Amino acid sequence: MRRIVYIVIAAIALVGGIAWRGSASAGADGGVVSDFETALPPGYRDWRLISVAHEAGKLNDIRAILGNDIAVKAYRDGTLPFPDGAIIARLAWNYVSSEENNKAFGGPQSFVAGTPTNVQFMLKDSQKYASTGGWGFVQFDDGKPVEAARLSGCFACHVPVKARDFVYTKYSP
Amino acid sequence: MRRIVYIVIAAIALVGGIAWRGSASAGADGGVVSDFETALPPGYRDWRLISVAHEAGKLNDIRAILGNDIAVKAYRDGTLPFPDGAIIARLAWNYVSSEENNKAFGGPQSFVAGTPTNVQFMLKDSQKYASTGGWGFVQFDDGKPVEAARLSGCFACHVPVKARDFVYTKYSP
Repeated sequence: MRRIVYIVIAAIALVGGIAWRGSASAGADGGVVSDFETALPPGYRDWRLISVAHEAGKLNDIRAILGNDIAVKAYRDGTLPFPDGAIIARLAWNYVSSEENNKAFGGPQSFVAGTPTNVQFMLKDSQKYASTGGWGFVQFDDGKPVEAARLSGCFACHVPVKARDFVYTKYSP
Repeated sequence: MRRIVYIVIAAIALVGGIAWRGSASAGADGGVVSDFETALPPGYRDWRLISVAHEAGKLNDIRAILGNDIAVKAYRDGTLPFPDGAIIARLAWNYVSSEENNKAFGGPQSFVAGTPTNVQFMLKDSQKYASTGGWGFVQFDDGKPVEAARLSGCFACHVPVKARDFVYTKYSP
């Protein structure tokens, strides 16, 4: 019985995902602003882990890179370019020293995730985003999308990794 | 049609998870060495993200903490103690500077995950592991479990966070 409940939940999650992608496509065809640019993709916090990183300097964050099913499958299979519908999410949190952990480890060595900073996404749609390598770039601050003008430089920074379909992050097994 | 395939995959994954937990329980009842102590839990690399961290010093790693469905639900609901069956995984990779990223950011600020180091798990089974707060501790190096003697100190280090059911990592939204 419980198994059936899980299956139903899985089916609902799947239908939700299709609906969200459907809206994005409608945007591509009809010039309507797609869900991708106005709302966080549903369930992205449940996506699978691609890798982790730390950015020092001004960003001073610690981050996780997650992928939807299409993106994670492409990573694991080594598929390049990424297929349409692939979405890569970068979640970041303030980088903070953990006194609690340091005590356990016996030295000032432990850094953990503090408050969230922002969430960024790359969505592959080779038609809609043809001028930027097929990738759309979006950032959400406190759940709200930032102005497109602030993201106009995203693609240029990704050009050096054109050979990996403009994606910096490598999959960590 | 495709939807049905997904549902079937979800069902298979679920049954796999139940089988693994079943073995662990058999171990608890019959004194048989449980799967938990001899094999990596199936599908753990697909579990959801709890948080991320960096350990400097001798460990010099960057890490992701993942949880199975029971653990993630308990974290999100604030359930303490964690229910039996909760498993928390700590994956770690060597902490390496990324020249490629540094060029893009314009400074030596980027650190990423290199080769994997080891994987650790905490499994909640309040009966079997009653003497260690209900938690079993296991570590796998290259997919093989390390000797229990090497993990005998795990629990003592977790006692300071008894109020959070001996778990250091907090959930990162």
